[in-house]
This record gives sequence, C-alpha cells and structure tokens, in this order.
Amino acid sequence: MKLWDKGISIDKKIEKFTVGNDRELDLFLAEYDITASKAHAKMLGKIGILTAEEVDAILTELDKLQEKVEEGSFIIEEDFEDVHSKIEFELTQSLGDTGKKIHTARSRNDQVLVAMQLYFKANLQEITSKTEDLIDVLLGLAKEHQEKLLPGYTHLQVAMPSSFGLWFSAYAELMIDDLYLLQAGLKIVDQNPLGSAAGYGSSFPIDREFTTKELGFASLKYNVVAAQMSRGKCERTVTSNIASLANTLSRFAMDICLYMSQNFDFITFPDALTTGSSIMPHKKNPDVFELIRGKCNKLQAISNEMILITNNLPSGYHRDFQLIKENSIYAVENIKEILEVFIHSIAQIKVKEINMQDDKYKYLFTVDSINDLVMKGASFRDAYKEIGGQVENDTYKPALSKKHTHLGSKDNLALEEIANKKNLK
Amino acid sequence: MKLWDKGISIDKKIEKFTVGNDRELDLFLAEYDITASKAHAKMLGKIGILTAEEVDAILTELDKLQEKVEEGSFIIEEDFEDVHSKIEFELTQSLGDTGKKIHTARSRNDQVLVAMQLYFKANLQEITSKTEDLIDVLLGLAKEHQEKLLPGYTHLQVAMPSSFGLWFSAYAELMIDDLYLLQAGLKIVDQNPLGSAAGYGSSFPIDREFTTKELGFASLKYNVVAAQMSRGKCERTVTSNIASLANTLSRFAMDICLYMSQNFDFITFPDALTTGSSIMPHKKNPDVFELIRGKCNKLQAISNEMILITNNLPSGYHRDFQLIKENSIYAVENIKEILEVFIHSIAQIKVKEINMQDDKYKYLFTVDSINDLVMKGASFRDAYKEIGGQVENDTYKPALSKKHTHLGSKDNLALEEIANKKNLK
Amino acid sequence: MKLWDKGISIDKKIEKFTVGNDRELDLFLAEYDITASKAHAKMLGKIGILTAEEVDAILTELDKLQEKVEEGSFIIEEDFEDVHSKIEFELTQSLGDTGKKIHTARSRNDQVLVAMQLYFKANLQEITSKTEDLIDVLLGLAKEHQEKLLPGYTHLQVAMPSSFGLWFSAYAELMIDDLYLLQAGLKIVDQNPLGSAAGYGSSFPIDREFTTKELGFASLKYNVVAAQMSRGKCERTVTSNIASLANTLSRFAMDICLYMSQNFDFITFPDALTTGSSIMPHKKNPDVFELIRGKCNKLQAISNEMILITNNLPSGYHRDFQLIKENSIYAVENIKEILEVFIHSIAQIKVKEINMQDDKYKYLFTVDSINDLVMKGASFRDAYKEIGGQVENDTYKPALSKKHTHLGSKDNLALEEIANKKNLK
Amino acid sequence: MKLWDKGISIDKKIEKFTVGNDRELDLFLAEYDITASKAHAKMLGKIGILTAEEVDAILTELDKLQEKVEEGSFIIEEDFEDVHSKIEFELTQSLGDTGKKIHTARSRNDQVLVAMQLYFKANLQEITSKTEDLIDVLLGLAKEHQEKLLPGYTHLQVAMPSSFGLWFSAYAELMIDDLYLLQAGLKIVDQNPLGSAAGYGSSFPIDREFTTKELGFASLKYNVVAAQMSRGKCERTVTSNIASLANTLSRFAMDICLYMSQNFDFITFPDALTTGSSIMPHKKNPDVFELIRGKCNKLQAISNEMILITNNLPSGYHRDFQLIKENSIYAVENIKEILEVFIHSIAQIKVKEINMQDDKYKYLFTVDSINDLVMKGASFRDAYKEIGGQVENDTYKPALSKKHTHLGSKDNLALEEIANKKNLK
Repeated sequence: MKLWDKGISIDKKIEKFTVGNDRELDLFLAEYDITASKAHAKMLGKIGILTAEEVDAILTELDKLQEKVEEGSFIIEEDFEDVHSKIEFELTQSLGDTGKKIHTARSRNDQVLVAMQLYFKANLQEITSKTEDLIDVLLGLAKEHQEKLLPGYTHLQVAMPSSFGLWFSAYAELMIDDLYLLQAGLKIVDQNPLGSAAGYGSSFPIDREFTTKELGFASLKYNVVAAQMSRGKCERTVTSNIASLANTLSRFAMDICLYMSQNFDFITFPDALTTGSSIMPHKKNPDVFELIRGKCNKLQAISNEMILITNNLPSGYHRDFQLIKENSIYAVENIKEILEVFIHSIAQIKVKEINMQDDKYKYLFTVDSINDLVMKGASFRDAYKEIGGQVENDTYKPALSKKHTHLGSKDNLALEEIANKKNLK
Repeated sequence: MKLWDKGISIDKKIEKFTVGNDRELDLFLAEYDITASKAHAKMLGKIGILTAEEVDAILTELDKLQEKVEEGSFIIEEDFEDVHSKIEFELTQSLGDTGKKIHTARSRNDQVLVAMQLYFKANLQEITSKTEDLIDVLLGLAKEHQEKLLPGYTHLQVAMPSSFGLWFSAYAELMIDDLYLLQAGLKIVDQNPLGSAAGYGSSFPIDREFTTKELGFASLKYNVVAAQMSRGKCERTVTSNIASLANTLSRFAMDICLYMSQNFDFITFPDALTTGSSIMPHKKNPDVFELIRGKCNKLQAISNEMILITNNLPSGYHRDFQLIKENSIYAVENIKEILEVFIHSIAQIKVKEINMQDDKYKYLFTVDSINDLVMKGASFRDAYKEIGGQVENDTYKPALSKKHTHLGSKDNLALEEIANKKNLK
Repeated sequence: MKLWDKGISIDKKIEKFTVGNDRELDLFLAEYDITASKAHAKMLGKIGILTAEEVDAILTELDKLQEKVEEGSFIIEEDFEDVHSKIEFELTQSLGDTGKKIHTARSRNDQVLVAMQLYFKANLQEITSKTEDLIDVLLGLAKEHQEKLLPGYTHLQVAMPSSFGLWFSAYAELMIDDLYLLQAGLKIVDQNPLGSAAGYGSSFPIDREFTTKELGFASLKYNVVAAQMSRGKCERTVTSNIASLANTLSRFAMDICLYMSQNFDFITFPDALTTGSSIMPHKKNPDVFELIRGKCNKLQAISNEMILITNNLPSGYHRDFQLIKENSIYAVENIKEILEVFIHSIAQIKVKEINMQDDKYKYLFTVDSINDLVMKGASFRDAYKEIGGQVENDTYKPALSKKHTHLGSKDNLALEEIANKKNLK
Repeated sequence: MKLWDKGISIDKKIEKFTVGNDRELDLFLAEYDITASKAHAKMLGKIGILTAEEVDAILTELDKLQEKVEEGSFIIEEDFEDVHSKIEFELTQSLGDTGKKIHTARSRNDQVLVAMQLYFKANLQEITSKTEDLIDVLLGLAKEHQEKLLPGYTHLQVAMPSSFGLWFSAYAELMIDDLYLLQAGLKIVDQNPLGSAAGYGSSFPIDREFTTKELGFASLKYNVVAAQMSRGKCERTVTSNIASLANTLSRFAMDICLYMSQNFDFITFPDALTTGSSIMPHKKNPDVFELIRGKCNKLQAISNEMILITNNLPSGYHRDFQLIKENSIYAVENIKEILEVFIHSIAQIKVKEINMQDDKYKYLFTVDSINDLVMKGASFRDAYKEIGGQVENDTYKPALSKKHTHLGSKDNLALEEIANKKNLK
C-alpha cells in the first residue's frame, strides 16, 4: 500500500528502486512521527476538524504505537512504503473513517520535515552532552598528567617542549568550538515546520502556533516555502556541524596512532583496545583509533554529498531529497557511537615516561635558551643568531626545562577557565 | 629577506614554489597585523621587555604604516616573503635595535593566527550586515508583491498556488538561519590566539589577558596548542558558514534563471542586468544570476578543499596550512561582492502578471477543492478520491483561488515576525 | 573467531565498532575470495608447500563453498569477522591441518586486495556492457525521432533549433567518453596484487606469475608495496570513473524532469513510470528520473569521501582502508541498477509534438536568418546588427526552419560514426 | 568592447563581476585560439565563405599575433572581455570587413571549447612526459639503494622488513597507473568540438572533417550538443586524472615528511631544500615537500568543485561554465610545477643508514621466523602461535634478515618489468 496508489500496478524493480531503504531508516523516525501526529490531531480538534472523541481515539491509538516503538516491537512491513503510510494504515484499521482523517491539512512532506527536525533536536542535545562528557574526561587527563613533558613538533620536526597536559586539554578546548556550532545547528532545527503541507501551505485554518507549543519548538519557520526548503538545509547544517566535531576527533586520533608507533612510543593502551595481525604475532594495532579517524573522515564527506544532491535544484520539493535522509541518520548515529567509543577508550590511555635527554630531543630547548639571553638584554634577533651559531657548531647545551608561566602555557593550563567556556555556549 | 634566512642561497624556482602568492594575499591582512603588533608591543612594555620609549617609538612607526595601508600606498616588495617580514624590516630600518625587539615572545605563526582572526571577525560582521540588508530588501519585495500569485511546483510539476510574496520572503527567512551560523562562526574567531608562539607558548611572562582586551576579543583561546590548531579550524568554520549562505543564494539564483526562461516567463530584469550573445541578436541572458549561482557553488567547495589539505595531519604546524589562506580570503571577499551584486540586482526585478487561467495551471487548485469537500464533512482520503476521479475523467473545474489564512501562508505572510527573528540571532 | 584472536576478550561494543558491516559486504566478495584461494592453493602446490593431495582436498572444499555462494546459501555467521575467516574456518573444519595451511604465504590484506580487484574487473565489464546497451537504445531513439524539432536553449533562454535526434544521440556520444574512462579503470584493476602479503612480500618462494595467469589478470602489480597501495587507488579510480558516467546520466535525468514540466511539456512517460502525491490527485511526478538524478549525484560524492579517508596517511596499511570497501561496492551495485532502470524507462519515453510556431519560440531562428544574409554576401557582424535591429523593433519574421547539413548537426546526425566510436575504446 | 555589446551601458561593478579574471587566464589560451582561428579561416575558404585572398590576409595577421604570443608581447587590454574579442578586434583593425568575417559560422562558446581542448591536449602530453621522467628518477634511486633496508609499517606499527628499493619503485609503479588515466583523458580531449557554434550547430555548410584534420585531432565530437557539453566534461576528466597523480605524489610527500622527523630519521635533504623558523634556530623543515603535499591535496579538490558548479544544470550552455576555466588552468599549470620541483628535489635525497638492530625494530622479523618453521613442516597457524608465544614471553630472537626471492619483493624488484609497463599505456 502506498499513500499515492492510484490502482496502477508498478513494476517491482522500479518499486525497489524508488522505495530504497526507507523502511529501515524510518524506524529511527517512528517515535517522532507519532509525537508530531499527536500534536497535529490535537490541533485538528482545536480548529474543529476533528471532534473531541475523534482526537481521543486517535491519541489512544498513537500511544499504543508509541509503546510498541519503545518496546522495539514496531515494524514496517514490506507492504508499506514508509513509516507514515504504516501509521496511517494502523489508525485506519483500528478507527475506520476517523483514522483516515489524520492526514487532513498535512502532507507526507510535512511529516518527514517535522519528524526529521524532532529527531535532530533530540540527537543534537545528546551529542552535545556526550561531547561535554568527553571534554571533562580530557580535562581530567590533562590535570592528571600536567607535569609530564612531551616533545612539541612543527613540520613533524622536534620544535619546543610541550606536555601531556597541553595535549589533552588542547583537544578539550577545541571541542568547545564544536559545541558552539552544534548550538547554532540546534537553533536552526528548533523551528516548527509543520503546516507547510506540500510546501505551499493549506487552505485549512490550521493553528501553527498551537503545534509549535505542543511540540516544544522554540520558534516556528513561518513561511511555508521556507519550511519546505528547510529540508536539505537542516540536514546540511547538522551534518556539517557534526563534521566539525569529527574533524577534531579525527586529528586527535591521528596523534594517538602516531604516538603509539614504536618510533614515538609516547602512549599505549591495554590489549583489549588493540588488534592483532593474521600473520604478525607481535602486532598490537591501534585499530580502534584508526577506525575513529576513518569514520570521522567519512563524516566530513557527508555535507558535500548533500550539496551535490540538492545543488542547482529550483525551489519546491524534488524526490532527490529522499536520498539525504540516509546519510543524515548515518551521521547522527555514528557520531554518537564514536563519542562513546572515544570516551571509553581514551580513559584507558597509558602515558609513557619520555626520555627528554635523548639526543633527538635536545634542540627542543633552543627557544628557551634564546629567551634567556633576551631577558638578559639581547634583542631577539641577536639572541637567535647566537644560539643558531651554537647549533651550527654543535656546541649547543640544552637549557634545563624552564617553567612557562603565562596563561594557557604548559605550566599554567587554565583548565578551569576552559571548563567554564562550556557553559557559555 | 626572509625571517628564517640562514645565509643559504635557495634556488629561485623553489622560492617561487614556497612563497606562492602570499605577498598579494597579505595586503588583506596588513592592517590586522599592524593592529596586533601594536597590542603586542604595548604588552611587551607592560611586562618590562620594552621600555616606555621603545613602545612609543614602535607605535609611532606602526601608525605610519597603518596610514599607508589606509591610503593604499603600502606595498610588499618582491624582497619580502610576506607582510610580517616587511613590517619587521620597516621597523628595523627606522628604529634599529628597537625595531628588532618587536618579534620577542611571538612567532610568525602567532602573527598569522591573530591577523586572520581579526580579519575574519571584521568581515563576518560586514557579511552579517550585508545579509541583513538583503533580507530587508526581500521582505520589502514580498510586501510589495504579496497579492501576486505564482504557480507552486513540486517535482517541477505544477502543484499548488504560491505567490511572489511567499517566494521572496522564503529566501529572507532561510537567510536568517545563515545568520545564526555566521554568529557561531563569529564566536569561534572571537578568541584571542596571540601568545601561542610556534604553538607551544613562550618562556616569557607574556600577559595574554592584556592583549585580549587591547584587541577587543571577547575571549581567548587559552591552551596554546589549541590556539595554534585554530589555524585550520577558523578557516574551515568561516568558509563553511559562508557556504551555507552561498547555498541559499545559489538556489535563489537558480529560481531566477528558470523563471526568466520563456517557458516560465514570470520575471524579468532591465537590459543593463542581462547579457547578449556573440551570434544570437535576440538574447537577454541572465548572466549576473548565473554567475551568482556559479560563484556560490564554488564557495560551497572550499571547506572540502581545506579538509583535504589538513586532514590526517598530526597536531602542530605544517607548512600546508599556508595554502588555506588563499581560499579563506577568496571566500570572504567573494561573498561580500556577491551580496552587493545581489542586492543591487534583485531590487530591479520586474514581476510579471501570470495568467493563472492558462490550461497548464488548472490543477494548481485541486487541493483547495479537496479541502472544500473536507470542510463539508468528507474524510480527506475520500475527498482525495472524488477530486482524483474528476481529474482522471477530465471533469475537474478549478476552484476560485481561496484565501489561505494560517500563519506563514500566502495570505498571511508573517513578514514582521520574520523580520523580528533577525534580532534573535 | 577472528584470525588475529590472541585469547583476549574484547568488549562487545568495540567489536561491533571495528567489524562494522563487513559480514554483509563480504557476500559480494565471497566468490572472488574463493577463486583467489584456489589459485593460491595451486601455487602453493607448485612450489612444494602443499602436496598434490592437499591441493586437491582444498580445491574440492572450495568448489563446494563456491556452489553454496552460487545457490545463495553461503552465509557469514556472527562468529566470523569477515568472509576470509569464515572460509578458512570451513576449510579447517573439513580438512584439519591441511585447511590451516591455506593461509601460508599470504595475509588477509592480500586476500582483500585480490578479491576486490577481481570483483571490480568483473563488474567494470558488466557496467561497460550495460552502458553500451544504453548507448544503443539512445541511438535508436535518435534515429526514430530525428525529424522532430526541439527548442535549443542556452542560459535557459530560447536560442536555436535543436531536435530530439540531437538530444538523444548527444548523451549517447558523451557516454562513449565514459567508456574510455571505464576502460582505463579496467586496465588499472587488471593487475594481480596477490603476493604482497601484509604489504612487504614474503620470504616464501611464491610464484606470482603463476597466480597471475591462473586468475586471468592481464598483468601484475610487481612491487609489493605498490600492490598494497593499490588498495585505495583502485577504489578511487573505479568510483571516480563510475562518477563520470553518473554525471552524464544525472544531467540527462535533469533534462527529462525539466522537459516533463507543464511549462515545457516536451515528453511524457506511461503512468507506471510516474508517481502520485499524498495530497494532490493530479500529480504524475517523474520520481524515477529524480531518483536517477539524485543517486547519480550521490555516486559523484564517493571518490571525494575516499580521498578524505586515505589522504595524508603514510604508506603501509591502516585500518581506515576497511571503510572504503562499503562505498566501492555501493557504487558498483548502484550504477548497475541505475543503468537497468534507465534503459527500461527511457525506452518508454513518449515524445510530444512541439508547436514551434508558438510566440515564445520565434527567435529560435534568428541565427539562421543572419546566416541567410551572410550567404548573400554580408559580413557576419553586419548581418547580426541587421537582424538584431529587427528583433529590437519587433519586425523580425522567423525564417522557415533550414536544413543544417554539416556533420553532427540536426539534419546529419552521424549516428553510425558515433556507434563506431564504441569499438575504438 | 564586448562581442555582445548592444550599446547599453553596464554598471562597472557588474562588469567586473561578470568578466572576472578571464583576461589573465586567456593568456594561456591565446596560442590555441589563434591556431583554431587559422583552421576555421582555411575551412571558410574551402567552403567558399571567404575568398582565397581573404584567407591569406587573415592567416598572415594571425601569424603575426602568434609571434607576439611567443615573444610574450601579446596582451589583453582592459577594454576587451577576453582573448577572443581581442583577436577579432585586431583582425578588424588590420583588415576591415575581412576581419569581421572570421566569426562567421562559429560562436565564442565554440572558440572556448576548441581552445581549451587544444590546451589540454598539449599539456596532458607534457604532464605525461614529466611523469615519465619522475618515474625514471625513482627507478634509478630504487636501483641505487636496493640493498638498504627500511622498516616496513602497517598501522604505523613496525611490521616487516622493507627496503629503500621497494619504497622508491613502489611510487614509480603507482604512477604508471596515473599514466593510464592521463591517457584516457587525452583520448577524450582529442576530439574536435569546433563547429558546434552555440551548441546546436550551424546552417552554414561547414566542413568539420577538414578542421579536425587541420588541427590534428584524432577524432571529432560529432554531435554538436555533445560537443558543447564537452565543456565541463573535459575539464572534470582532466582535473580528475591530474588529481589521481596528485594523490600519488601527496602520499609520497607525506612519507618523506614523516621519514625526515627525528623520530624516524631515515632520510634527509641538503639545506637548500629545507626551511628555517623565525624563532627556532635549529629547524630544517621540509617545507618543499609539505607544500607538494598540500598543493597536491588542493588539486584533489578541484573536480568536486567543478561538479558542484555544473551539477543539475540542464543541457545547453550556462554562464556558470566560465567559472571552471580558472581551476582547469590552475590544475594543469600547478601539476607541471609540482612535477618539476619533485624531480629536482627527490634527486637530492640522502638515504641514511638505519640501525635495524635497534630494539624498536626487532619484531620486524617475526614473519620470516614463522616462515622458517613452516618451511620445516609446521602449518602456518601453528608456527604463528609458536612465535607469538616467544614474543609474549619476551624470548623472541630476531631471524637474520632473509632474502625474499619472489617477483616484486625487496630482493627481486622487477625494475625492468616496471619500466616496461610505461610503454604499454
């Protein structure tokens, strides 16, 4: 059964081609479609399209379906094109003519719009919360390991002294920027699109402020054409904001994989978090972090894909938009999984003692040496030449590691200030 | 002269390869580098590295350079690698040893970071302001043309009645979402990175809170490693947010180009905004809007390019980051130009009278006809079948166009509510 | 059971995270892994690592598994990480120690490499063949409709006379370019990688020329590091070549959707190929072609995703490469489905009679009018001004449509020459 | 002066917006536009549109312009929109009415098409030749350093013995695949588009086979609509094929940067190829290879940008296509420069002696140890467990490095076979 079935038989192959994997994806949306249907039914009651009894009957049936969703027993059989036709069928089965009335003054496009935005809203909050958890774990690690030095590199060349404290808390602070973007995304999806119908509104006197309040949206997308065009814009915004977080995690994972290499040997993880090889018995590979890196890189490709699909299409709905649902859900579900695995794994990191006296690290301290000369009165450029000459003639002796005192430096990490930034999002 | 010159001659070809077009791009950054240098000099005075006289002398010279920048007479000769070495050279020429001291406790990487962020900050404010101007123009056009009907399409098929009022104000409301993203971008670049030096801070007791205040940053990026890694993150965020606005403008331009086709013939523009053909004397091509569309699509490619450049690089500066400067500046300067051209051009749009009685538009009103039946008591599904039957048998008579009363529909545009949203960003 | 299991229990969540959907994807590779395993076993026999009896026993078991694959009864249970561990398990179950020996002198990375390349090779041939079928259908349609005029547009503005013959055969000829790229892709995957082991070869005296011949590869990737790095390169090349074909199909589908709009009304399709609306009973939407367009656009995003995953990774295998398998198989399986649906659907196109006398098309003939003047002796630029003046003063009278005689023009389509190009790939 | 000027004054800002940087880019195309104009003029003579004297006069003038181009004295003044209007202006200045006739039976779109394809053709040949040079250099380095061991990594973990011979020649062999793609690109651009005029051919009896032969094209794009649509397709194909080569070079550059890190310390370069730091006097940064990496990554973004610009546009020319010229030329000119710099630089590489006895490398030889047991009769899986146990108990003693004898392994590099593959492209 399809909502638009006009009694014309359609070639099976074409059907598979057009329906795609909507049935599977729509399981993620079922609870939100039901929530929105309830608000829509109440509104139809308020404006007199449905009687109070009809509203009650519909709400009762929808609650039963919601329970099934929660239990995991809600399924979308092959007869149905998507979750929306399934739910309407169930209502009609139970309630007859009353069930048919639920589709008054809305369209399927409307339903997809509002369900996706409710899904995004709930999940952006969850992603935000998990990101905050990860930030806290990292700030904790920074505090725990703040005294331990780490070589700092530029151009992959030994450069200046860094520390594990700096390293962990750097990623924490960068993720706060990602929170700001998630927050903007949340603001964008938190506008009720319900009522746009097929994208041009309705001749029914629907009450969009009522559904906005009922659904807990902060605002509404007033213009019905704009509401329809939010499809695409919301998906791109959300996946693009997720991509920003993914970028931060991916670069962190790259550091981890590099630092686990025997040539760096700065950190390690318990065996349960490493993987062996089918032919090399000694291998303890950082597969978890390689997959975090790879999956985060994949997430960074999604908004480009969406632009490729929707770009240069004139306004108004096109079926192409169906195809961006899949990767929206993929992005949301994956980033949550990645955050969980990251939190679980990074908490088990073992920081190694690094021998900073090793010959390969001796030039880490040249800038501190120059600064010593400057503090004694030399100009920076002259001090630079002096120490540069020592390096050239191989007479340079590393300074003892000096304390860095300024805000945000290795010996003054500003961890509390960073933690406070989270609250300013 | 290069800052890092160690007296080793470097092949010319290689030099061209490494310096690239930095000299040209850096003209956009000169004023911000000077501003940041002034703040740095004052701070060095405050912590006792420079005497009050030295600070004064440096500020005076920097002010002179700033005047040259404003006049347009500041140039970066071929002898200089970039704006930073040019400015340091000028200071040293005028002030001798005092001039050399300006580079104390900072690195070139530091300078690029802070100059880029100041550039972004100023420009995001300007882009926001121009976008608000465009929104106002569109809301004005919506009001002016609110009575004029326009066919609404889905799947490029005639669907339901729309209006010029809906069309103009839809893009206005969508751009408010873009403002939210620009706002998040602004928050991210509004954090002082100065003091990260080469990415690992400094052994000098620099006062980063002082420079933060002096430069008018809302906050600071505390962690020096995070501050260094903002390079890349700021560029990606800003260009990605610009891309969101570009996406809205590109889709609008597509509508315009389509609606100017003889097969739609909904709108036109004065001759000064159209272009002829080298072989077809009748052509009035919408080149301006095609180029807006194309340039906006190009802007949507930039953040992907940046990810391709920076992805999978471990933390710490790499020279590859030099390459993202060009397209950051390209994106900023282009979107400003596009907004100006868009505002200038859209204001001259001529809206045509569309014959809604034309046979090809008659099914625009089927949903209104269905709704009439529903209002008389039919269920939506039954009314749908009734009108569907009339269409099938070619007995359908279009309803007279009905008023749509609900919030955000063609006859209730909510223009003030939309305008108010701008203030909530 | 995982090949690399060292008896350490691994958290379930992490396992799911690392195994991903390999089991499902590997069903596409099973037949190729078996084929490659057979060649490997024979080679081990040839160099004396396996006895003739062992080889026979292994081949017999592998043949049984191949039959299961062909019947569709081969499954990869949850206990197995991938198809490779499943097959090795089956051999060991049946043959004991002999089964264990199959993994001698190869690694899992090796197996994935060779199975993917065999999969690509078979499928590029199939895609080529289907593309040739589509080209033939289009050339047939071009011939059938060669006399029917179609307005030609530039800038979406009415420009010059075109024809259905030109339109159909244009896409046919463009697809021949796509065949050239598929051919290059085929050449690249047709090089045996087997023997690279974990990417650095083997101390066993394996005979790579033997397996090359046995597997029917045209050549071999000699260098074992290059062979390992083919992973990624093959996937990118194949999906990038598929994307080129997808680009052609996507643009064709856009034309089709536009030409079906009531405002163009050039073509139509039987009801079975169009889709209705849940609220508008008159709709016959071109969903099939919208989905072709959207899916083809999605295919164009894949090689970028792969570059994002693999870029900036140093040489040698990384687990990230596992993630490019999914979209490689997605691209291959989708393009085949799209080609089938396209061939099925385009064959049912109904070409409408277009009224070229309609006022909106009258300037189609201005260039022909100019050319008439030129043939009578005017310079092109002067004739252009003359006709331009007539258009300006609204005195222009359209020329009768003239025959275009040159090769490749609307009245001289060169269909045979185009068909012949297919053979030169 | 613009070709399409109809006496209507156009706002300067709009003009700058529409003309863009075409004047600058067109200097790369001037020689090809002249070559194509000569062929077009001869053809017009052959079909009787121009007299023999007119043809001679035009050819003489075009030859003079060609000389100017070769000398570098050809310029496109601000008065001209592009190279095409400049050349036509010059002809008209010198020859009066005769000069005006050159534009008979062609359009500017035609001219851009054929000039771009001639430019691509010449440059793909040059890129191919430079790539072959680089392959030869690498095969030479492989031979020179074939005895020197290098640790082989998987997952960035020490894995199995590799060698400098394997490393250098791996990239050589991978570039041969890139040659195959360049070859396919060459085939696609080697089809004469001239004669498509504005994309729908001409009513003049032009002789396209004549211009095909005259211009040395291997074939012609027959269908005029296909010829016009080659714009976009050629650019995407060429930049996508260049991107494949760039990908290979980028990964090579990543290896180089990593291997120069003090933590690997496998290779080094003379001072002239490294760069210092403005604050760290000891730095010798691999900027050249970082910029190769970054620029190659940037090249990999271009075809995606082009798809974003051209995607979902219906057939027929749109002004948006002007915007893909810039990055096409950018890609071509950059890859040539990168290849030159790469050849120049890699030739100066210094390979270090690596202490394979170092503790961190001892497990490189575990697979060789397992294989020894297998050669003595153990099954692979049992031998794996035995050596795995030794690693676990820290009793493992590295095998002496064994010769690998099979084709393509470290001690049997197949350099000649690889070199021969170049000829099979």
